[in-house]
Amino acid sequence: MGVGILRFAGALGVILMLGAGVCGMAQAQPLPQAQSQPQPQPQAQASIDAADLAIAAKLRDQALRGTDAFALVESLTTEVGARVAGTDAEARAAQWAVRELTRLGLANVRVETFEMQGWVRGPERAQTTAPFAHELVISTLGYSVPTPAGGIEAEVALFDSLEELIAAPLGSLDGKIAVVTYAAVKTMTGAGYGYAVRARRSGAIEAARRGAVGFLMRAAGTHSNRYANTGAMAYADDVRKIPAAALAPPDAALLQRLAKRGPLRIRFETRPTLPGTVTSQNVIADIVGSERPNEYVILSAHLDSWDGGTGALDDGAGIGITGAVAGMIAALPTRPKRSIRVIFFGAEEFGLIGARAYVARHRARLGEYFIGNQADAGDGRPYAFRTRVAESALPAFDPVRALLRPLGIIPGDNLATSGPDMTPFREAGVPLYGIEQDMTDYFDLHHTPSDTLDKVSASNLDQNAAAWAATTWLLANMEAALRP
Amino acid sequence: MGVGILRFAGALGVILMLGAGVCGMAQAQPLPQAQSQPQPQPQAQASIDAADLAIAAKLRDQALRGTDAFALVESLTTEVGARVAGTDAEARAAQWAVRELTRLGLANVRVETFEMQGWVRGPERAQTTAPFAHELVISTLGYSVPTPAGGIEAEVALFDSLEELIAAPLGSLDGKIAVVTYAAVKTMTGAGYGYAVRARRSGAIEAARRGAVGFLMRAAGTHSNRYANTGAMAYADDVRKIPAAALAPPDAALLQRLAKRGPLRIRFETRPTLPGTVTSQNVIADIVGSERPNEYVILSAHLDSWDGGTGALDDGAGIGITGAVAGMIAALPTRPKRSIRVIFFGAEEFGLIGARAYVARHRARLGEYFIGNQADAGDGRPYAFRTRVAESALPAFDPVRALLRPLGIIPGDNLATSGPDMTPFREAGVPLYGIEQDMTDYFDLHHTPSDTLDKVSASNLDQNAAAWAATTWLLANMEAALRP
Repeated sequence: MGVGILRFAGALGVILMLGAGVCGMAQAQPLPQAQSQPQPQPQAQASIDAADLAIAAKLRDQALRGTDAFALVESLTTEVGARVAGTDAEARAAQWAVRELTRLGLANVRVETFEMQGWVRGPERAQTTAPFAHELVISTLGYSVPTPAGGIEAEVALFDSLEELIAAPLGSLDGKIAVVTYAAVKTMTGAGYGYAVRARRSGAIEAARRGAVGFLMRAAGTHSNRYANTGAMAYADDVRKIPAAALAPPDAALLQRLAKRGPLRIRFETRPTLPGTVTSQNVIADIVGSERPNEYVILSAHLDSWDGGTGALDDGAGIGITGAVAGMIAALPTRPKRSIRVIFFGAEEFGLIGARAYVARHRARLGEYFIGNQADAGDGRPYAFRTRVAESALPAFDPVRALLRPLGIIPGDNLATSGPDMTPFREAGVPLYGIEQDMTDYFDLHHTPSDTLDKVSASNLDQNAAAWAATTWLLANMEAALRP
Repeated sequence: MGVGILRFAGALGVILMLGAGVCGMAQAQPLPQAQSQPQPQPQAQASIDAADLAIAAKLRDQALRGTDAFALVESLTTEVGARVAGTDAEARAAQWAVRELTRLGLANVRVETFEMQGWVRGPERAQTTAPFAHELVISTLGYSVPTPAGGIEAEVALFDSLEELIAAPLGSLDGKIAVVTYAAVKTMTGAGYGYAVRARRSGAIEAARRGAVGFLMRAAGTHSNRYANTGAMAYADDVRKIPAAALAPPDAALLQRLAKRGPLRIRFETRPTLPGTVTSQNVIADIVGSERPNEYVILSAHLDSWDGGTGALDDGAGIGITGAVAGMIAALPTRPKRSIRVIFFGAEEFGLIGARAYVARHRARLGEYFIGNQADAGDGRPYAFRTRVAESALPAFDPVRALLRPLGIIPGDNLATSGPDMTPFREAGVPLYGIEQDMTDYFDLHHTPSDTLDKVSASNLDQNAAAWAATTWLLANMEAALRP
């Protein structure tokens, strides 16, 4: 996932929803492995056939015994690796996806291209020049403009938080490099990341508005390794564009110590290239519904990654989970009543560009889409099921909640945001659901060079696939009116 | 610490020594904080005055309440940072040490220079070119020769271990890049590192002997981050010198996956510079003994570090522990009977060069040295006290063992190797002791860019300082003949 505000909004919802229950979560026992078929509750029988309930339970239990999810991540990270939006590598990932989705038995496998503004990392380097000289480890933020060749060197204005930077008077940063040293907090929901990442999105704007010539921030990550989580940033039309980069956490701490010993100066150089308009693509595939083929249940993830690692967790994990689930359902002797549409979005990391392109292109048909979801939270265990549907439709989800309960998944609220790429769908009125995953350790690795296959738990992927598979089948076959 | 065989030898000793007791260690309770004065045992009273026992216990308990150790590491890593042997940065570290040892009240603070062959990291880069293209993260091994500009590109011969490489016939690696993917095992003693690091020392020799044109190895570290532990390597006079580098652990795993998909090829380029003879230095300071000033108790650490991080654990921690202990003893109203000599060695990482220079320069007086020790194992908790002295002298150490017992330190064997820089002293006949530290997590950070201050535990440093301080005082005042 790349755009923090969406996850942040969702995370706050989870916090509010859980209330005192959060404490109970912390004491949760190991998740039971569901093997028996659930007893549907009386009010649930209205929305779903017993045969479909049985299929959903069977899919769930099959997934717990092992899925293709990890093998898909292994293949993607080994045969493609890093796949930055708008590059040849991302196009190779799309061809990989076409091959895999075809192999998994999906229909209508195709690529839809779109245009985007490209951005490619170049040489980047930073160092303190006073009061003591140190090399700093940085990662230029996506869409940052370059510095001049040779870099910029300036006095540093250090802020403990974005709020402190915003409290600085206009003009007070003239000619300076503004640095925010705020450290992200670990949370199960990702809310700690959501709070910290605001500096990535608006820090350069706020700094430039106050006169700064450059912006650095402690990386929006929760680790203490000597590399900096990257990610996209933004500019405002009415403010000068200044170069921006993230600092490795230990380097941000070093700056705090140096600043106590005398005026702090930094030289930093970053030379990304902005090649103008480039092409990215979404990969789409269907399991065509037997009764209502135009009503889609979206099963999605994003195919692009950042450039440091191989995007194993972000979002290889989502590709693995949704790809495995699609393959399981495609292999069933029975077709679902509604269509299931797999969408592997391109260019999520640069601002949901693939998702917006999809919505723009398919807008005329979105009114028929039944519900959407995206897996983009790594391999953390699923722990809550949320929806964003008409209140009147909530009872229809009781069978879903019942099937997920043995997986250690608690009922959530009706404020689901799902993955970031579901935002344009939500704005277009498409109902959503979300299977929330434990993100406590996700931001140790997210957008870092260490987001590699060895971090991915096959059993966690299978646990998620179990939830996704059962839910997808129920949603593709249930009777309900999800829109107000 | 830099030269694995020394630590390895020591670690094996610990394993043998502990025997079945290793299991007991795993269940150890939190270490008690000693606050009361110990009752000396009858057989111990012969070797040490009650007044000195009381001073040693007081030093120990004072250290547990807090020492300068962390502040020294903070200062060194902030005001100097990385300090590769033979560079200006190492010389600045020496000036820092002169300032700090003087401030701490030591006498005869001085610098002794020596010459060494310099080596400075240059640009380094690697990538797979078949069967799929990936960028690899490498760290050139210290003293490696450079590749030609543009690098070398060759088919890869992959080996699971150094043993497998050595089993390959002569000529079987002609024109290839040999890669060892062996992963280091975590151990409390560091023995897992000691086993893995053999590839760093002899891998390039063994590969070249079989015809290889380049050598890569999975970094001798126990983490899974996307950077490679560096360290010095070696060449043999009778074998061609081939360039050598360490791979980040996830990248080594990637190579194993790629090799299953077709012939693996790698291009790698490294451009270190070898400036010839450069100058390094040891920093020396004394607490002059009141009765036997020519009998030295050595309290040592090493001042140089690798270039990626700031050498906070390796060996900032040792500098902090020994510096703090020296300062505590210098501040006492009573002088020890023997002299305490603080030595902050230069150029440990390139092969104990500073220690060898010291021994060569002071050889005529080494016969009078009472005992030596070096702190070079990070900030892990102390857990065993070892010696390498005449068997007849062992009972004289009973008071030491008694004073260390409340710190959770068990009696060890008489095969101490102490820190790596004590090797030339041992070879010259100087008795040694060692305070073994828990190294389970040390090789997550050792020789990596993440060896930074935020990893250092002030309370662990104090726990070590407590052991070192009490031991140093007892050794400087005890009656014993330590040599055979």
